[in-house]
Amino acid sequence: MAYQQSFDVRTRKRGASEITDVIADIVRESGVVTGLVNIFVRHTSCSVLLTENADPSVRRDLETLAARWAPDGDAAYRHDDEGPDDMAAHGRNVLVGSSLTIPLGNGQMLLGTWQGIYLWEHRTSPCRRQLVVTVVG
Amino acid sequence: MAYQQSFDVRTRKRGASEITDVIADIVRESGVVTGLVNIFVRHTSCSVLLTENADPSVRRDLETLAARWAPDGDAAYRHDDEGPDDMAAHGRNVLVGSSLTIPLGNGQMLLGTWQGIYLWEHRTSPCRRQLVVTVVG
Amino acid sequence: MAYQQSFDVRTRKRGASEITDVIADIVRESGVVTGLVNIFVRHTSCSVLLTENADPSVRRDLETLAARWAPDGDAAYRHDDEGPDDMAAHGRNVLVGSSLTIPLGNGQMLLGTWQGIYLWEHRTSPCRRQLVVTVVG
Repeated sequence: MAYQQSFDVRTRKRGASEITDVIADIVRESGVVTGLVNIFVRHTSCSVLLTENADPSVRRDLETLAARWAPDGDAAYRHDDEGPDDMAAHGRNVLVGSSLTIPLGNGQMLLGTWQGIYLWEHRTSPCRRQLVVTVVG
Repeated sequence: MAYQQSFDVRTRKRGASEITDVIADIVRESGVVTGLVNIFVRHTSCSVLLTENADPSVRRDLETLAARWAPDGDAAYRHDDEGPDDMAAHGRNVLVGSSLTIPLGNGQMLLGTWQGIYLWEHRTSPCRRQLVVTVVG
Repeated sequence: MAYQQSFDVRTRKRGASEITDVIADIVRESGVVTGLVNIFVRHTSCSVLLTENADPSVRRDLETLAARWAPDGDAAYRHDDEGPDDMAAHGRNVLVGSSLTIPLGNGQMLLGTWQGIYLWEHRTSPCRRQLVVTVVG
């Protein structure tokens, strides 16, 4: 039996916002003891990111790497309808992904001590992002 | 209870072919209302890609980014038995992945309006690709 | 009903160690015939990798690509508390991911002939890595 909840996040600009606690609450409400939780974002210009949760510099350095992978306004892009960050955002999304699956044990996510879940906004302007959390077990 | 179907895709050359409708049909046949669908490709030189489905330029620009990440015939490669696109294809596969998991609600995939599922062929010559679709809920 | 087992791997240095057989054993013990297995590593400086299993040069070439993506000791990094491979390891982790989901059919993983599962250590010094394997079906 699967349990599912959706929620929205309003992002203000490019960058990672932690959502670990929101996911943990939904897992608790599901009542599932052993299983999997999937976090999915219904967009192709932001990502669901699992990364180090202690030092904010890690997320800043990830922005640096992502900007090298898919620079804003690259002369080679043909898709630029929504500005210089448009194709860069799709490129960053493909790198990191829209879907993350995490194991549950004892009714909780089995994250390591230094693992946090983030919505990583790749657009430079504010967006409303829809997420779907599905628990199976 | 899990439902599973396999199917083959014959690719003609490097590039992304949309498979959203094939997956949607399998989800419908599964009868699962709430749960997860996993799409898996049994190869390491093509990927299952989730990306923007409206403007074909996005997929062309993704080829541009992928070619920077893992260029064909790079002088540093030691694995080149099957030609200049051999290791490039394995590199692109690792970047994007062989496995994609998407939530189901109301008996359908909860994709956003602009999300499409693609088999992304990384080899330059035609291949027969096997995919496995598994629905749990 | 979900089945779960955890295990540790002691890595000696940067590089990929095959864990396909360990996962196959856990799948067998689960008794699940059709479903999904998720392999999760509880760290943000190593990855669960699915790649070509025949030629070790592929994994060496992936190291070459990964080193271009997130070079050790890059001057732009702000996060370097644990040495020049610290942020490089987090960058490589984000590229490849900590979570991999594979379909099961006939009680086995439906891997292709040339697919192997690896724990990819991104740190240059030895680490103890915790993995969680969850089977649902």
